[in-house]
Amino acid sequence: MILDWKEVAGKIYEDIRNKVSTLGKKPWLGVILVWNSSASLSYIRQKEKWAKYAWINFYLTKLEENISQDELEEEIIKFNQNPEISWFIVQLPLPKHIDEQKIINLINPDKDVDWFTKENIGALFLWDKTGLIPCTPKWIKRLLDEYNISLVWKNVVIIWRSNIVWKPLSLLFINEWATVTVCNSKTRNISDFTLKADIVVSAVWKPNLVTKDMINPGSVIIDVGFNKIDSKIMWDCDFEWLEWQNYITPVPGGVWPMTVAMLIENTYLAFLKN
Amino acid sequence: MILDWKEVAGKIYEDIRNKVSTLGKKPWLGVILVWNSSASLSYIRQKEKWAKYAWINFYLTKLEENISQDELEEEIIKFNQNPEISWFIVQLPLPKHIDEQKIINLINPDKDVDWFTKENIGALFLWDKTGLIPCTPKWIKRLLDEYNISLVWKNVVIIWRSNIVWKPLSLLFINEWATVTVCNSKTRNISDFTLKADIVVSAVWKPNLVTKDMINPGSVIIDVGFNKIDSKIMWDCDFEWLEWQNYITPVPGGVWPMTVAMLIENTYLAFLKN
Repeated sequence: MILDWKEVAGKIYEDIRNKVSTLGKKPWLGVILVWNSSASLSYIRQKEKWAKYAWINFYLTKLEENISQDELEEEIIKFNQNPEISWFIVQLPLPKHIDEQKIINLINPDKDVDWFTKENIGALFLWDKTGLIPCTPKWIKRLLDEYNISLVWKNVVIIWRSNIVWKPLSLLFINEWATVTVCNSKTRNISDFTLKADIVVSAVWKPNLVTKDMINPGSVIIDVGFNKIDSKIMWDCDFEWLEWQNYITPVPGGVWPMTVAMLIENTYLAFLKN
Repeated sequence: MILDWKEVAGKIYEDIRNKVSTLGKKPWLGVILVWNSSASLSYIRQKEKWAKYAWINFYLTKLEENISQDELEEEIIKFNQNPEISWFIVQLPLPKHIDEQKIINLINPDKDVDWFTKENIGALFLWDKTGLIPCTPKWIKRLLDEYNISLVWKNVVIIWRSNIVWKPLSLLFINEWATVTVCNSKTRNISDFTLKADIVVSAVWKPNLVTKDMINPGSVIIDVGFNKIDSKIMWDCDFEWLEWQNYITPVPGGVWPMTVAMLIENTYLAFLKN
């Protein structure tokens, strides 16, 4: 069975659109794009499309790829100070010559709708219920909720220690009473873990790493990997062999678009906090 | 074999004492104690004793147990503003009528030597190497280092989701290439996990939860539990049965005193940052 993000995302956009239409004022979403790849640009176009659909004002600043660290920092400060832009994001990844973490930590935490700054990730760590949840762990949890897949008692295996996945996802899943194992590229006999898992989350970014013999029939597979090899798009899991008694995230299309839905929802939730 | 914290802690105090004696100025450690239990008081006495041993100035403010939230907040603000006190801690736990997390988040992150505020825990989460590490995960890692127990490839099982243990300890251990599983009280067949573990960390606070049949000979057992039942002190692990081919943390005496050594070390490291 395919966990269908299109249906879930569609419901989320509809819901936010309805809620925003009843507000006296439209929320704003600011975006700083250092234009360095067509992938980032097409991602931003999705964000713009769905923000507008949900009646959210979208304010985009496109910067040149060769911008200096100092110039980019000035841009962040301008967004921090602009009273019109209540919340904004910096589209990642940034060009290699930029210190990405320094840029993120410069964002005013009260305007950080990606929930990436250290103050906000610290609030998540301390399980502060008044805060937001970053988009990637948020959609994984939401998708499971939509299909009534409970986490209580479940054995969850997260493959490899990608910062944006394992850290916040462990927090969310352990809070819901899952038993969570985080594997890394040095883990021996990874199948010992995956074969006992009820849910496998793969965030490796290495094509076809997860193979048929590693997965039990009936388990849920969340594939966060997205790999471009010789311009062919491949996932971490070798979906061709997959038997349909497993729940899996959709191929083709991947799962990234659900992050857009979560950003739109976070923008709305953030607006309510102001 | 017993992992002997007394020997390790002794070396740490000696090392810090030597280093501080070469500084032109003595570091200060402030402590706010809301005096509500003899356990807290004896803990504070240990902190005072070893701070002074390491030539660290110790500044204690003892407050009445029935202090109000507002009054305690004012006290925190006074410590934040006092230029003499560069770093301080609030001894936990606080009385039940106090909002503990609110108090912690009021501490100026630049004076938070326990590394408990959301800004500081967020920095740890983002693996900011310039920061400190909270005392409990720090001593566990240090003790393993002292006995040359590497974490690479190791299967680590953390029993139960105690916030002060699993969250920072997972960060530290996964960063060192361990495969980490966090179990909770709803985990089924917990022995399936512990029997395959190279290292078991128990932070349950429930006496004798970890029994002989759950542990492999040769594995390392770190018992963070400390239970007082009818005035008898008991640990999570039933140490009486333990065969000595396992590495275990010491009984009696527990492992808490290592947190004092880590606090003294953090105070010194924090002083160097100023």
